[in-house]
Amino acid sequence: MATYKLVISYDGTAYHGFQYQENAYTVQEALEKAIHKLYGEMIRVGAAGRTDAGVHARGQVVSFRAPETIPGERLGQALRGVLPRDIVVVEAGRVDDGFLSRKDAKGKVYTYTIDNGPHKDVFMRNYSWHLPRRLDLEKMQKTAILFLGEHDFKSFQAAGSPVKTTVRTISSLTVTKKNRFVVLRFEGNGFLYKMVRRITGTLARVGLGKREPGEVLLALRDGERRFAGPTAPPGGLCLEKVLY
Amino acid sequence: MATYKLVISYDGTAYHGFQYQENAYTVQEALEKAIHKLYGEMIRVGAAGRTDAGVHARGQVVSFRAPETIPGERLGQALRGVLPRDIVVVEAGRVDDGFLSRKDAKGKVYTYTIDNGPHKDVFMRNYSWHLPRRLDLEKMQKTAILFLGEHDFKSFQAAGSPVKTTVRTISSLTVTKKNRFVVLRFEGNGFLYKMVRRITGTLARVGLGKREPGEVLLALRDGERRFAGPTAPPGGLCLEKVLY
Repeated sequence: MATYKLVISYDGTAYHGFQYQENAYTVQEALEKAIHKLYGEMIRVGAAGRTDAGVHARGQVVSFRAPETIPGERLGQALRGVLPRDIVVVEAGRVDDGFLSRKDAKGKVYTYTIDNGPHKDVFMRNYSWHLPRRLDLEKMQKTAILFLGEHDFKSFQAAGSPVKTTVRTISSLTVTKKNRFVVLRFEGNGFLYKMVRRITGTLARVGLGKREPGEVLLALRDGERRFAGPTAPPGGLCLEKVLY
Repeated sequence: MATYKLVISYDGTAYHGFQYQENAYTVQEALEKAIHKLYGEMIRVGAAGRTDAGVHARGQVVSFRAPETIPGERLGQALRGVLPRDIVVVEAGRVDDGFLSRKDAKGKVYTYTIDNGPHKDVFMRNYSWHLPRRLDLEKMQKTAILFLGEHDFKSFQAAGSPVKTTVRTISSLTVTKKNRFVVLRFEGNGFLYKMVRRITGTLARVGLGKREPGEVLLALRDGERRFAGPTAPPGGLCLEKVLY
């Protein structure tokens, strides 16, 4: 037996998230089915980040243990032949035993894309959140700075997710505009359930002039949940990279 | 009765092209169904360019005649409410009687996108042609120049399309690279059936070192069909703009 690591990219539109579910098709199931075709046995995989239904990934990292029947350098090619069209293997190879994609991750990079054009960009309809009203980019950028560093993000997590601590560190949060698209890029040591989408929803409200930076501070510092959110829709979110 | 003009954008992936077909779902049918919902009657529409199955449009122009029940400035909004998610109205309004999207078009702009990355970009899988081998961009650019101006493009049309003349003028053909994507941009007074995709296929072979510029000249000047093509797949093609 040996340990293998994959970097995969997927269009999450057709999936009910990454993680296995009894009654819904997930990326994990698609991946395990493909791996089953190669090894002839059921092998469980683990992912660095459990993306939700409709959320995408450019650099999701997956690890699993399997027999040494396929050389590490041939694994990517083999998997590409059996995976569905909306999951692509970017990198694949053997790694040191004991590697765990989730536990060993030091941080993650996510992007959230807002389509700020007057009408929806049809080619980006599954990969962005369409907000036709003009966003005040400067105000969003200034408010984004408030999230930097270590904070208790309990107001920015979705209810019902048990975690030991809700303290996380965001090392970078940028808001940039390219043509009609406003892209928020988050880098941090970890993110609570729906945290990126709730921060995005909050910053979008700031950009629309419906929330003030002072209110965001109240949500962040004093845990005033009513000033946090709403949760931005899943399609705009993409797990870009896992840092080790 | 009045004449109306639409500029529409669509993801052609799910359609068997623009033009109505008895046994297949097309953009025209989707559009006419939506218009039927607004006017309560069947109205025929005409498009500037008849895109093939799987081909996309960012600026397709459509014209039709309809009763004056919906003001021109409200037509776009009304259509957006009844069209499927993969067809978006960019502009809509009333125009002078006698306007015909196809007949009045002075020219068209198409782009063809090649994904030249080592592995397929999963988000561009329906909007590009994946060619993992390195393309010689300079050679493609130099060969592209041969197509400029007025030529008899008979070697670059697909068989079985009756046209009065196969002479067309390409006023601009650029080959640019942005990150992993090579984009060919065509501007001309008109294009024969599958002509953009055959020129793209030809230039791709040049980029891969499998065809020489001299051979392309033979296809173009002397009608040597065996040096033209292959026809690039439909997904990479997009009708960007119709010129009037």
